Amino acid sequence: MSILTIDPGETDKRLLLEISFDGYRYGGWQIQSNNITIQGLIQDALSKLYAGQPIKLVGSSRTDAGVHAVGFIADFLPPAAPRIPLDKLKKALNRRLPGDIRIRAVRTVPVEFSARFDAIGKAYTYVINSGAETPFSGHYSWLARWQPDLEKMREAAQPLIGTHDFSSFVVERKAIDSAVRTIYAIDFQLFGQYLCITFVGNGFLYKMIRCLVGTLEAVAAGRLTPAQVKTILEHRDRTRAPETCPPYGLFLMKVFYEKTETPRFKLEKLPFAP
Amino acid sequence: MSILTIDPGETDKRLLLEISFDGYRYGGWQIQSNNITIQGLIQDALSKLYAGQPIKLVGSSRTDAGVHAVGFIADFLPPAAPRIPLDKLKKALNRRLPGDIRIRAVRTVPVEFSARFDAIGKAYTYVINSGAETPFSGHYSWLARWQPDLEKMREAAQPLIGTHDFSSFVVERKAIDSAVRTIYAIDFQLFGQYLCITFVGNGFLYKMIRCLVGTLEAVAAGRLTPAQVKTILEHRDRTRAPETCPPYGLFLMKVFYEKTETPRFKLEKLPFAP
Repeated sequence: MSILTIDPGETDKRLLLEISFDGYRYGGWQIQSNNITIQGLIQDALSKLYAGQPIKLVGSSRTDAGVHAVGFIADFLPPAAPRIPLDKLKKALNRRLPGDIRIRAVRTVPVEFSARFDAIGKAYTYVINSGAETPFSGHYSWLARWQPDLEKMREAAQPLIGTHDFSSFVVERKAIDSAVRTIYAIDFQLFGQYLCITFVGNGFLYKMIRCLVGTLEAVAAGRLTPAQVKTILEHRDRTRAPETCPPYGLFLMKVFYEKTETPRFKLEKLPFAP
Repeated sequence: MSILTIDPGETDKRLLLEISFDGYRYGGWQIQSNNITIQGLIQDALSKLYAGQPIKLVGSSRTDAGVHAVGFIADFLPPAAPRIPLDKLKKALNRRLPGDIRIRAVRTVPVEFSARFDAIGKAYTYVINSGAETPFSGHYSWLARWQPDLEKMREAAQPLIGTHDFSSFVVERKAIDSAVRTIYAIDFQLFGQYLCITFVGNGFLYKMIRCLVGTLEAVAAGRLTPAQVKTILEHRDRTRAPETCPPYGLFLMKVFYEKTETPRFKLEKLPFAP
């Protein structure tokens, strides 16, 4: 049975939230002193629903300011009282939250479940607009000045797939952390004028996807060859890779907790499509 | 020859801007003392490009705070110097403006052209979301709690088409102004879970479309019958009609200047679709 569908009963449970948000207005997921954050807003709303008791919400990942999410996961231990039925909790939260943060589901999970530490993989999609600018997609895509050459970008991405030391693609890493991660897949899909690059991996370092997309963009724009991407990876040196790309094109699509197989994810439509 | 394609030469010309904007962050089109407005931002950008000379930009309509535009039209008389080629002007403006305000075209028009007074019609679309909420369309649609019954809504809209006194559907009208307007067409289209109501008319009073949509929504939700809409129109009394609906579902789609025929407009896709 899946870890996410076990109902351990009424007396000993943790609650899981599946959250979609437009990160444009926020200082990211994680609570900070000087910014409105998604964690902060949802914790405050939960606390009000639980009669002012403090709630500690733990997210599957720290997402940066401006980054969006389709399937962010967070968990918390509800107080013993008041008891709030799950469907009422979802509705009450959505009534209290701004429209750009939506609770998609509330589920019971075992008390020992951790949205953060039990995650075995994640899928992220980065959206590049290679056509005309519109005022309605600027918060959700990075504007490129080239026509995408998918063959060349796939060739450049190939050496990144697998288990590697990604030191060349990480920002502000602490010296003690390992930069070894496994990327299971990098997919390129066109939806009209929008190129979506989807990364599925066992985990990603700070700003790693934005560094990788910056590098693939340099290939598309002709500033790097596919062969040079492999060389940059092998150098394990951040100064070798191009600039990171902006946060507003990035979407956390899905967090994986099932341990039965390698995480797979297929993007069906533009992450922000209505 | 069309009024919009005459080039009167270099010495005596006015410039027309075709503008798309996401109105969410702004206090509407028209300059106000306490709000960031679209007119204010574009005028400032133009003034900087014309060496600090003041520019007076006149818009085709006053759009309210939160209302969006796909094809807003404005005009201004450029200073004699510096001369800026039209393609350069467009690029330079877009570089200086925020991403949610985009200049789609810059064209030369006769010096006597007025974006405001020469407009012979306008098309507006209002978007209602009758499905699941997403954090990415909340700025662009009004969330409804019913499934749209297009037959009933078309029946309710029928008596509104034509030339009528729309006093029942106007907010804050000055007593001297006539409330007589002509609506050429009201179209209902579904794009997935989004119902688009498109109004084409010779002009619309302050908040008139939002009053009309509020009324049609009341029909869809079962609070009014189609027959009651006709009665409300005939009463010419604002207190008879339901509340106006919120601004963020409304898009100015097109302004008409050609005098050869009745304005027609066919919505091809959701106004904010990527």
